[in-house]
Amino acid sequence: MSSSSVTIKDIAKMLGISKSTVSRALSEHTDVNAETRQRVIEVARKLNYAPNTIALNLKQQRTNIIGVIIPETVNRFFAKAIGGIQRIANLAGYNVMICQSDESSTTEKNNLQSLIAAHVDGVIISVSSETDHTDHFDALLQRNIPVVFFDRISESLQTSQVVTDNYEIAFEGTEHLIAQGRNKIAIVAGPLNLYVSKHRFQGYADALKKHNLPLRDEYIIHSNFHNSDIEAYTKQLINLPERPDAVFAINDYAAIEMMYHFKKHGIRIPEDIAMLGFNNENICKFVEPPLSSIELSSYDLGTTAAELLLRQIKGSRELEKKLVKSKLVIRESTAGKKS
Amino acid sequence: MSSSSVTIKDIAKMLGISKSTVSRALSEHTDVNAETRQRVIEVARKLNYAPNTIALNLKQQRTNIIGVIIPETVNRFFAKAIGGIQRIANLAGYNVMICQSDESSTTEKNNLQSLIAAHVDGVIISVSSETDHTDHFDALLQRNIPVVFFDRISESLQTSQVVTDNYEIAFEGTEHLIAQGRNKIAIVAGPLNLYVSKHRFQGYADALKKHNLPLRDEYIIHSNFHNSDIEAYTKQLINLPERPDAVFAINDYAAIEMMYHFKKHGIRIPEDIAMLGFNNENICKFVEPPLSSIELSSYDLGTTAAELLLRQIKGSRELEKKLVKSKLVIRESTAGKKS
Repeated sequence: MSSSSVTIKDIAKMLGISKSTVSRALSEHTDVNAETRQRVIEVARKLNYAPNTIALNLKQQRTNIIGVIIPETVNRFFAKAIGGIQRIANLAGYNVMICQSDESSTTEKNNLQSLIAAHVDGVIISVSSETDHTDHFDALLQRNIPVVFFDRISESLQTSQVVTDNYEIAFEGTEHLIAQGRNKIAIVAGPLNLYVSKHRFQGYADALKKHNLPLRDEYIIHSNFHNSDIEAYTKQLINLPERPDAVFAINDYAAIEMMYHFKKHGIRIPEDIAMLGFNNENICKFVEPPLSSIELSSYDLGTTAAELLLRQIKGSRELEKKLVKSKLVIRESTAGKKS
Repeated sequence: MSSSSVTIKDIAKMLGISKSTVSRALSEHTDVNAETRQRVIEVARKLNYAPNTIALNLKQQRTNIIGVIIPETVNRFFAKAIGGIQRIANLAGYNVMICQSDESSTTEKNNLQSLIAAHVDGVIISVSSETDHTDHFDALLQRNIPVVFFDRISESLQTSQVVTDNYEIAFEGTEHLIAQGRNKIAIVAGPLNLYVSKHRFQGYADALKKHNLPLRDEYIIHSNFHNSDIEAYTKQLINLPERPDAVFAINDYAAIEMMYHFKKHGIRIPEDIAMLGFNNENICKFVEPPLSSIELSSYDLGTTAAELLLRQIKGSRELEKKLVKSKLVIRESTAGKKS
């Protein structure tokens, strides 16, 4: 029997039970006893039965699929968050479909349309760096599709959200550099239209202010997330009349590349310039000198976002906001200044 | 008007044209003139019209969605391949939905069911390391859903496939090490049930054989893809009575971590042990010494797989097999042995 033609009727026939029992068993009705349900599911699997989502969607609007939209999977922060989302979703019997926006607002909209068309039960989103308006997310709210934003959230929408303590941890990282005797601290910041970059930058700026250090334009680098111009930015810092004595970089890869270029120019890390990264990639431990960084717990961000979403899918109408704490991991690259 | 209730009728009314013209315009019929089609699409976007996939699927079985199943997005090789797939798909007006198997055969099956239920137009797959049988892929063939395997292919299924020259490039890499005066070459190999690991290992073994070097059990390490035991494996190699003078590692991160542990033990790279990685991650350029590696062109693997799939979706019945060539990138970590 070709599986594309397998219907509920075939399963019912094989088991000698009614079509409606099969139907109720497959849609997880509690009025079917557990053993019957198990038998129905086994036969369905054996026959390679694919539920008729068309009919199922019309009846109960459930597919057991969670949609995820993230900027890029090559960004390990998001790849790890997906790991967390998937862990929680799979345990609860949900499958995960991931779309990437490629940092494009248009692709993000298309992703959203595809996920809606696929009748996902809920969506977890981290917005693209290009997204400066959020009208397209209204489509979810209008359809009552549960949605949770994480990390890069939409501040204008009333939805559940999970964020990291970007402001606090950037403040703490900057104070750590100051405590190590650094007072000319450059920052490699991200695009400031992004929630996370904005908050991290503010933490850096406020820490400087608290310690009466000036916020200097020439120490602020607005890089993109692709690290495409790190070599040029490094040279720019090297050639300043007053060279910085520390750099707080937007991500570890940028920090590691900068270290390499600094060292090529005979600049010692951390003696001349201290380096602090963001993300605490595994590789931080294995470069020279080992790189201090900020552990962002992206996996936990993912698990928390999935938990909030599942609660909503199961009927909760409460909008929850969760904070996942980050941690400063100190290694040799930010050791004290030798005077 | 709530967008969930927007129908073809509403669009037709707004434009003063017939419902059937709107319907034909949205389903890309060539008998609607381009200008009308453009106006229909604009209004549909404006009203946030989500095509009734239920009806569309019943009529034409097209969703303009390509499904992708890969082992893990944290593996940058696959993350980059997704980039290539998405580029080609988006240009052709297709959206991409990604599922990850987490190297689990069961999750892979669930992914497949979800993508089938979402009525994707075709699927691109790289199998999990756990997958040693391929019955579950039959569901695609039985439904005539176009499928392309890439990198980790299923050898038993008759489908289009895109692979890299794993055997040849591993052979070339091993010969490069031999040419640098190395004759005790260890390998950090992957799980041998995987097509790619098996072929890479064979390339290594055959190169040794060609140069009359023995294949020594103690030089073969069967690591997993998570590099969880690299430190232990490194110590194992260090403590051998005859320490290797080169290591060919399954991936760059394993190689970089090994270099770190070797250096901690006073072993010089490349003087005492040459190191060769796999993947040519950006980071290879910025470690000490810069790491020689194999550029796998995973992005090109992705674009090629997407092109093959689109040809099938458009009706081609030809099964195509493509090879994407890799490249040895030589840096300091495999410089010649100083005797």
